[in-house]
Amino acid sequence: MSDGTLTGSAAAVREPLDLAALFAPRSIAIVGASANEEGYSSRSLANLLRTGYAGRIFPVNPRYEELEGLRCYAKVSDIGEPIDAAILLVRADLVPDAVRDCANAGVKVITVCSAGFAEDGEAGQVRQRELVDLARGRGSRLLGPNCIGAVSVTDQVVACPTLNITGTYTGGSISIISQSGGMAVNLFNRAQGRGIGIRGFVSVGNEGDVDVADLVDALADDGQTSVIALFVEELRDVPAFKAAVAKAHRAGKPVLALKVGRSDAGQRSSLSHTGAMAGSQAVFRNIMEQLGVLEVDSVDALIDTADLMARVPMPESNRVLIVSPSGGECSYAADRATELGLDVLPLSEETVQALSRTMRFGAPSNPFDLTGQVIGNTEFLLSVLAELEQAPEFGMVLYAVPTWGSHDAERLLPGFITAAEASGKPTVISAWTAANLTDRGEDLLAASSAPHFASADAALTALSHLARWAASYREATRTTATARQTGTDAAVQIRRPAEMAELPTEHEAKAFLARHGLAVSREVLVEEPAAAAKAAAEIGWPVVAKQLCTNVVHKSDLGLVRVGLRDEGELAGAVEDFGDIVAAQGLKSEGLLLAELRTGAEVIIGGVRDPKFGPLVMIGAGGVLAELMDDTVFRQCPVDRQEAVAAVSQLAVGRLLRGYRGTEYDLDALTELVVQFSELFAAADWIQQADLNPVIVSNSKQGGAVIVDAALVLTPSTEESTEEPRCH
Amino acid sequence: MSDGTLTGSAAAVREPLDLAALFAPRSIAIVGASANEEGYSSRSLANLLRTGYAGRIFPVNPRYEELEGLRCYAKVSDIGEPIDAAILLVRADLVPDAVRDCANAGVKVITVCSAGFAEDGEAGQVRQRELVDLARGRGSRLLGPNCIGAVSVTDQVVACPTLNITGTYTGGSISIISQSGGMAVNLFNRAQGRGIGIRGFVSVGNEGDVDVADLVDALADDGQTSVIALFVEELRDVPAFKAAVAKAHRAGKPVLALKVGRSDAGQRSSLSHTGAMAGSQAVFRNIMEQLGVLEVDSVDALIDTADLMARVPMPESNRVLIVSPSGGECSYAADRATELGLDVLPLSEETVQALSRTMRFGAPSNPFDLTGQVIGNTEFLLSVLAELEQAPEFGMVLYAVPTWGSHDAERLLPGFITAAEASGKPTVISAWTAANLTDRGEDLLAASSAPHFASADAALTALSHLARWAASYREATRTTATARQTGTDAAVQIRRPAEMAELPTEHEAKAFLARHGLAVSREVLVEEPAAAAKAAAEIGWPVVAKQLCTNVVHKSDLGLVRVGLRDEGELAGAVEDFGDIVAAQGLKSEGLLLAELRTGAEVIIGGVRDPKFGPLVMIGAGGVLAELMDDTVFRQCPVDRQEAVAAVSQLAVGRLLRGYRGTEYDLDALTELVVQFSELFAAADWIQQADLNPVIVSNSKQGGAVIVDAALVLTPSTEESTEEPRCH
Repeated sequence: MSDGTLTGSAAAVREPLDLAALFAPRSIAIVGASANEEGYSSRSLANLLRTGYAGRIFPVNPRYEELEGLRCYAKVSDIGEPIDAAILLVRADLVPDAVRDCANAGVKVITVCSAGFAEDGEAGQVRQRELVDLARGRGSRLLGPNCIGAVSVTDQVVACPTLNITGTYTGGSISIISQSGGMAVNLFNRAQGRGIGIRGFVSVGNEGDVDVADLVDALADDGQTSVIALFVEELRDVPAFKAAVAKAHRAGKPVLALKVGRSDAGQRSSLSHTGAMAGSQAVFRNIMEQLGVLEVDSVDALIDTADLMARVPMPESNRVLIVSPSGGECSYAADRATELGLDVLPLSEETVQALSRTMRFGAPSNPFDLTGQVIGNTEFLLSVLAELEQAPEFGMVLYAVPTWGSHDAERLLPGFITAAEASGKPTVISAWTAANLTDRGEDLLAASSAPHFASADAALTALSHLARWAASYREATRTTATARQTGTDAAVQIRRPAEMAELPTEHEAKAFLARHGLAVSREVLVEEPAAAAKAAAEIGWPVVAKQLCTNVVHKSDLGLVRVGLRDEGELAGAVEDFGDIVAAQGLKSEGLLLAELRTGAEVIIGGVRDPKFGPLVMIGAGGVLAELMDDTVFRQCPVDRQEAVAAVSQLAVGRLLRGYRGTEYDLDALTELVVQFSELFAAADWIQQADLNPVIVSNSKQGGAVIVDAALVLTPSTEESTEEPRCH
Repeated sequence: MSDGTLTGSAAAVREPLDLAALFAPRSIAIVGASANEEGYSSRSLANLLRTGYAGRIFPVNPRYEELEGLRCYAKVSDIGEPIDAAILLVRADLVPDAVRDCANAGVKVITVCSAGFAEDGEAGQVRQRELVDLARGRGSRLLGPNCIGAVSVTDQVVACPTLNITGTYTGGSISIISQSGGMAVNLFNRAQGRGIGIRGFVSVGNEGDVDVADLVDALADDGQTSVIALFVEELRDVPAFKAAVAKAHRAGKPVLALKVGRSDAGQRSSLSHTGAMAGSQAVFRNIMEQLGVLEVDSVDALIDTADLMARVPMPESNRVLIVSPSGGECSYAADRATELGLDVLPLSEETVQALSRTMRFGAPSNPFDLTGQVIGNTEFLLSVLAELEQAPEFGMVLYAVPTWGSHDAERLLPGFITAAEASGKPTVISAWTAANLTDRGEDLLAASSAPHFASADAALTALSHLARWAASYREATRTTATARQTGTDAAVQIRRPAEMAELPTEHEAKAFLARHGLAVSREVLVEEPAAAAKAAAEIGWPVVAKQLCTNVVHKSDLGLVRVGLRDEGELAGAVEDFGDIVAAQGLKSEGLLLAELRTGAEVIIGGVRDPKFGPLVMIGAGGVLAELMDDTVFRQCPVDRQEAVAAVSQLAVGRLLRGYRGTEYDLDALTELVVQFSELFAAADWIQQADLNPVIVSNSKQGGAVIVDAALVLTPSTEESTEEPRCH
């Protein structure tokens, strides 16, 4: 079951990747280079020459003596000089020999562009493993196969065999890692087209050897990289990825990711509610948040947010001040900001007073409508913006500019640019672009270091991502620090009770949870109806009575649950009714369960094991409606109390628990239970899925959060199961 | 209370606007024109001359003899020729005389750009009414004040006093109406910058006379307009707007709207759950949907979708086929489409077979990865796309193109363009732009009539809006047709029962609803406990008992509700307990309510009167969690059965009712109840707010949907109320 997800042991044995061999190789061999200009095989060489690569280039192809004025070799091992990087452009069947040749020649990183390996079924997987063994056996690293290699803008290394790469290079500090070659190019071009500086990109293809985790790890050490942006379909090695992200965070480098691969309902496990909710996209989003990795949902959001991260400090809060010379723009931006989850709070009284001392505004507010007063008066504009910059109540600022022709752009934009460049908090400019009309404004912004966007929407989207990231980053780095100190990652295993079946009864499940310290509703299982009254009196009236029967999961549907029995008379009536039903339906009694009656808010706590992310705890509102609305959050087990608090606060039911309708509930008890369950689930890897549903959280006065019903699904025991597992 | 929202009577007396006087005036007087190039007063004249206006221009300003070579008049009435349009650029205090002069001279439309009227408080409102009276008294119409007037691209009339208007005019059939002048310019520039053709725009400012409804009505008749796009803060006259939209729909013209004005929690009425949910933005969105007006949330979505509507037929469904030569792009676009609510269904078996007959693809699927096979082979590409076009299972198609340099753009884009242009269903091309790299592709697309977008996201957003609009448009036009036939708009008024207080008791409320034919849980109010058992037996065991007391709203909090009493003994016990509580708390009994026990799904049906939209019915999931998650939908009363079905189907609880967890519920009974309530609420304008909460919908076998609890808030009666209304 457990794939060591929590221990990070797999990461420990990894050999660090020599990033320089990819991004700044002193020499490159191009295996399969050709003179065929229409073909794929000519492009790596052409790209290297076109972009002014400063190192040594060695074309390798037995069919040529010379290519583009460079001597062409039959084999890499013929070159007779140290080769940092080799790019393989040959047919799939020629790849093994070429890799062997490169490895023998001591090439540091062999990039295999050719397809026809693990993506081509089982035989391809075997071929791929053989390739990797050939390379690693000689100490070489292998990138790909089925990739387009790496591009370093800052070192002018463009060796990838693709035509569709923009010719205008803007260097920067964002590094892109992509599992899709096409999307690597798309992200790169799109960023470059917008003037966003890029350090480089790496297309990892099938990740036969070098994977996303290796690259995050290497980029954490790269002096030229400040932000790491990922395009992923899946993470191959989660522990290594977690370790690499933690290293990047220690180096102060944000990591952000765009994931594709729609969650498929068919892939979901349906043995429990929790399993039914654990779609791959939702789980990925939640776990990335736990790791402090920002997950975004679009190409433009990825590059825009990466650019913003590279330019501004981390925001103190998600409270945004909106400033514009246009009233319509003010309203529009405020609406969009609110929809995106940013807080558009009013100016504080102190800020209003400070503004009133130095200038006259009717009613300074947020959004702040500068009105016509500022037009043509940059000094006045700057003094207003400087005063607003001081307002401690805002964590970020947007200067929202309408579509401006050159006249207004020249009169007003320099003031906004100066203020944004000088700001100590994330301050961005949105300036709607409109072809020729806005050329002048775009030029002014491009020449500045102020973060700028072509629409208010794009600016606010990036700010909202920045705020979301800051919150999860702070929480994740705190957790990592705590985990390192207390060593909670190394969980002790809990043994499976010998008597426990694959689908324990509700009573067995709760008894197990109670033995491990989790709060369970007080209950007694009585074999004989005669003993019921005494047991009920001990629990305390009113009680809940449930008639347990062999193979009956949905007890209430059969009338075998009675809630709120207030005295012996009512209990006796219920027992009699149960007896009638059992007899009429031909059921076999497994006893009468008597439990205390709890009232409060209903929550579900669940457990599920993800093939990639390991044991996950789910928290959500109780009831089927919450499931339909996806009001759930997943976290890798174990979580600590603060993580649990943060997770619950994201839920709609979290607002209810905090007192939305006047009643506050015992959040402490709930988060304690979440922590306990997450530790238990991490330590009991023989529990496949768990639903604690409902957990009833009492109001703050009464106190408590107890498990009222529980279903566990265990790993199959060695004996043959005689019945189909059914959804509880 | 009722402002006649349902009858449309206000719209009936409106005089149609002469659109030609705005968009194609034969003569224009510019009042307050000047030679001050830096100033606002020179720009209307400059813009008219710059853009080649073909009619006659008359500058009016007593300080000049001549301006730009044109004779300048002291007053409009001095011109001595018929004037279609006048633009007033003078100071606010000079406006009344200028308007009077224009009206006397018989100007058809007087555009008052000057500010300082209704937006400036009560005195300004008075000044504005006086202006309008001056104009209307002589048969002139008045646009503004506080606006920037109208621009007609197709008639080359650019008379607005603003500099920031792009100089490149692309004519088209989209007309824009905006309450914000700044946003009118922004929308216009943004569309023009993207090459999107515009018929013209009108900035309506304070809407002293000419309002959004007048313009929608006039544009419905405009031969050059095919789509009407709105930017609104609020609708001043909803009945007139509804009538105008219906007219536009009869002319086959879609209407779409972007609204600003964040819903303010402080503006919400909190007397009922329904009131608490009726935020202005949510209500606007819901009612626009009911009218078949597409509401979008961003500037780019407004112009992109308007452009798409102008180019393609209405889609048959929201099922989209995605075709791309890039695998990464396929995954990305499929994910985004799904997130946007589009259906990415697999190809049907028939389509797969048809494709296999003519070509070889490993496993044709949706998204459809064309792979490298098509590169450089336009004929083959066209045959594949033609085959896919035939697939009846798709309502729309996206051709998703990566960032392509000129080489690939020239080899592949013409095929996609030809196929998109020939398509009989909405077919769009997304081609990621990246500055110089993609220039060639952008040129090819700009020269085509195929709808195209600069990113897959923008294309899919527009398609998703198109699909959402098509569904609501079909429903709205059906409803309008039905309403015209049956005349349901003219609701009969129901009189308020004389004895009903401002906050009737639960029993009174339900009795009233029952009298009007709504299904209410069977219940009996007994004065004496002795009569309880007989009443309960008549209702049928088990029963619910509620002790009614003066001024007690939250009965259950005091222990005055008992659910599921099964016999006389249990009932007697409950009655005894109630007596103890009443005595202990010093309460005054108003009788004992006995009701049948209902089980099923809990729904809330509510009623609220919106100041703009009149009586609204709300449908939502029962319980506070649904409220937190905004699982509610609002509709103008009355609704018919089909509208009710469509509304419920949008809710998460709608999925539950349709059998998400195995149990199907009696949707017919629920929708019947919604229809009945909506008719009742429309006809009883003295009910301010209503919560039927919960309505319990039984499973399909048992059948029924009954009101189990109800709270009504009536308009204040003439007598002074002695207590504060409290939330029920």
